[in-house]
Amino acid sequence: MHSGASVSLVGRKLFHLPSGVAIVSRAKRYEQLRDLLAERIHRGVYRCGDRLPSVRQWCREQGVSMTTAQACFAALEAEGVIEARPRSGYFVTTPTNNTPLPQRSRPEQRPVLVSRWKQVQALVVGSAPHQPRHALANGMPDLRAKTLLPLQRLLTQSQRQASLTQFAYDSLAGDAELRRQITHLMSHSGCMRHIDDVIVTTGCQEALAIALRLLTQPGDVVAVDSPAFYGAMQMLEARGLKALEIPTDAEHGISLGALELALEQWPIKAIMVTPTCNNPLGYSMDDERKRALVELARRHDVAIIEDDVYGDLAYAAPRPRSLAAFDEDGRVLLCSSVSKTLLPGLRLGWLAPGRYRDRALHEKYVSTGSSATLAQGSVAEFMARGHHARHLSAMRNQYRLQRDQMRTWVHQYFPQGTRVSAPSGGFMLWLELPEGFDSIALNQHLAEHRLEIAPGPLFSASGKYQRCLRLNFASPLNDDTHAAIRLIGDCARAQLLVVS
Amino acid sequence: MHSGASVSLVGRKLFHLPSGVAIVSRAKRYEQLRDLLAERIHRGVYRCGDRLPSVRQWCREQGVSMTTAQACFAALEAEGVIEARPRSGYFVTTPTNNTPLPQRSRPEQRPVLVSRWKQVQALVVGSAPHQPRHALANGMPDLRAKTLLPLQRLLTQSQRQASLTQFAYDSLAGDAELRRQITHLMSHSGCMRHIDDVIVTTGCQEALAIALRLLTQPGDVVAVDSPAFYGAMQMLEARGLKALEIPTDAEHGISLGALELALEQWPIKAIMVTPTCNNPLGYSMDDERKRALVELARRHDVAIIEDDVYGDLAYAAPRPRSLAAFDEDGRVLLCSSVSKTLLPGLRLGWLAPGRYRDRALHEKYVSTGSSATLAQGSVAEFMARGHHARHLSAMRNQYRLQRDQMRTWVHQYFPQGTRVSAPSGGFMLWLELPEGFDSIALNQHLAEHRLEIAPGPLFSASGKYQRCLRLNFASPLNDDTHAAIRLIGDCARAQLLVVS
Repeated sequence: MHSGASVSLVGRKLFHLPSGVAIVSRAKRYEQLRDLLAERIHRGVYRCGDRLPSVRQWCREQGVSMTTAQACFAALEAEGVIEARPRSGYFVTTPTNNTPLPQRSRPEQRPVLVSRWKQVQALVVGSAPHQPRHALANGMPDLRAKTLLPLQRLLTQSQRQASLTQFAYDSLAGDAELRRQITHLMSHSGCMRHIDDVIVTTGCQEALAIALRLLTQPGDVVAVDSPAFYGAMQMLEARGLKALEIPTDAEHGISLGALELALEQWPIKAIMVTPTCNNPLGYSMDDERKRALVELARRHDVAIIEDDVYGDLAYAAPRPRSLAAFDEDGRVLLCSSVSKTLLPGLRLGWLAPGRYRDRALHEKYVSTGSSATLAQGSVAEFMARGHHARHLSAMRNQYRLQRDQMRTWVHQYFPQGTRVSAPSGGFMLWLELPEGFDSIALNQHLAEHRLEIAPGPLFSASGKYQRCLRLNFASPLNDDTHAAIRLIGDCARAQLLVVS
Repeated sequence: MHSGASVSLVGRKLFHLPSGVAIVSRAKRYEQLRDLLAERIHRGVYRCGDRLPSVRQWCREQGVSMTTAQACFAALEAEGVIEARPRSGYFVTTPTNNTPLPQRSRPEQRPVLVSRWKQVQALVVGSAPHQPRHALANGMPDLRAKTLLPLQRLLTQSQRQASLTQFAYDSLAGDAELRRQITHLMSHSGCMRHIDDVIVTTGCQEALAIALRLLTQPGDVVAVDSPAFYGAMQMLEARGLKALEIPTDAEHGISLGALELALEQWPIKAIMVTPTCNNPLGYSMDDERKRALVELARRHDVAIIEDDVYGDLAYAAPRPRSLAAFDEDGRVLLCSSVSKTLLPGLRLGWLAPGRYRDRALHEKYVSTGSSATLAQGSVAEFMARGHHARHLSAMRNQYRLQRDQMRTWVHQYFPQGTRVSAPSGGFMLWLELPEGFDSIALNQHLAEHRLEIAPGPLFSASGKYQRCLRLNFASPLNDDTHAAIRLIGDCARAQLLVVS
């Protein structure tokens, strides 16, 4: 059901919020018309990019004057909901048309040690004196989706029926039925693997950690896309590895040219990338560039650690191929989990370690032993019965619509010149604000309002991306979210005013 | 209820099994008497070390001749169930009196790299074509204990009542209520820690791995007791660490003299030991030696990784103190879990990292992120309601009685000259067979019978302990177990006959 997007999932109330536009009185006729049109857009009568009826048609249909109809359209245009195109009329805003993407990153061109654990810790330890009012900073999916409920039933059922002997040590590679379901899921990304090539792990985090440990020794250099997931960056830190951050484009992904230069210049032991529904930039590399990346790694005989944890949340159907799909000699180690698609608290992930299976099993054994048994059977059942496919379909739709809404809000409330990513999947938005902005200072300011964003420097080994930040838009958007984004935008604007 | 031990928990059938003793006919009167006396011993009317009625009393009570009564006693003596003491009469066998302990170990006196992953893998991967008939080789506790049932109810309840939002990422250190319960539990070993000094981990394995990673770099030397848990040895292997195996006594534990010499001679980065209910040797170091060990580490400014995973299963009440109880400057990192006391498949452990808390949290984050949420609340509740204390008490009793039974069987069926440990807790027996015995060859032979033991060399970095093996006696012992032990003993005897 990928047939275009309505502007917003949220109720029409949104449009009653003060928006900075000169709307004087609730009683006015044009306001009623504005709400009516807005509601049609919400309901999907008109979708992103659709042409609206002309002002003249609207007059006739509603029996109002041209002045009133024009005021109605002007109000929605001012709110960023619709846009006028010369000689073509009004269209429902497609946010991508309005806001430029973040610029191609330009990290340090040398291997550096990773730092910033203190800031990451504050974000992930969960020890903040006040929980933020909105989960804008973290990596949590929407846990309230109706399509998740069958999983809860299956978990309860299996728990009730389980004899305690099911809590023995599991086989080291994990539940066979779950591994079979995972190979099915992987086949949707064009990657065909045998169930013996899959190891169940304690979340994607353990899969990445195992892959890194078996490929590197402390002091080694690892090439990464940049910005990159702070959890992966901290793994480099903990292992004493150096990150070589490769320039990365918000639309096309890691620069293959820069990567090739780096491979010629530095003794790179592994390439760690998130090529599909990238966190935080949102892009998916196209097939040709993925194929070229794998070929490049083959030519330089380097292994690739592929973080595919958001890949199943690509808005396009069928989902984009993984790097592993182009891998012919087992050099791609694919890491994923159900933490972004189902429930992160299950800590259920997997590693498809390619040619490194034996070492990977060893690393798995010494890392945590076998995995927890409780949830594996239930998740396998959830997948086998088709619940997982239904859930993914629902979440892709929800996240796509919410992406559009969040981009609209960012466009409305953030400082002029703010660039924003156009994610191809997942539930993360990456913002690049104008020169002079400091995302860490913003967070300090937001703490007063019990709000928090993920500041850019966490996503860099070298302290880059100070004027960037990441927003999570997984939870259903409502008036509170709207008000929060508006407040964050106001704070950012205020900070830049002080600077200039 | 630590009021002595009956010789056996198993039914009286045990004594009807052919036992190699010259018992000719089922119809004989002395056999009936033998069974009657055996049954009384089972039922605890007479316990380990108790004096039995005299032959004369037995004649009177049963109305039989002296010859018949003597035949009855002789039969039980031949089976090892009772023993004659000169001028004192017959006593219920206390196995410790019969069988010498394994000799003090004499490992290589230099740091060595660990190997043997292939054998460990075969044991832990769970990929054997046939599951062994008895869990004699692995580290599984008894999962069928009645005192575990409340935990199953709590797990089901919490699952039914949980909203899916409870499956969010947990705080990195783990559930606060569980950590509070863990500090209570730790206080029973004399170790007082704040809940902020406890980090919930994915089993004891992750706790040990985190501790090792934060204290060492590849190439470093770690001093270990020897023999030692193969999982810990494999951690050294995976991290490229060298093991310096310290001579260890089956009664008193690691040799402090040898350790001191080693600390003077080698650049030791950490000491990794299991001082309470040691796996595989079963000893618990006494308080004075524990205090001296901590003091030795302090003098040489080395950290101690304490594996306390079997400590709560000490047969004595109150349980022995942990090393951490003697630690005054946070250099002991205590690692434990519920895998030996409750259910290993929960993968629920903890690390009390002392002065290393910040680095430990970092290592935890990059290893697996936060821990799985599902079981933490239920286990905390199980502990808070007193179920855990009741369960521990029941298991200590069960394992103590089964220890005695297993030692008796080993004494009966294994080659003369076999030495066997006298564990002070837990459910593992360590056997040392005469010169010429090969435990790995034995396992190959046992595979035909779908039986398996844990061969000695797995517990060494340097391939020692070829003539040793470990037996698990956690599951309730029955005729099948009896027959299995007998068969293993026969195979061992046959192997030694061929050798000699």
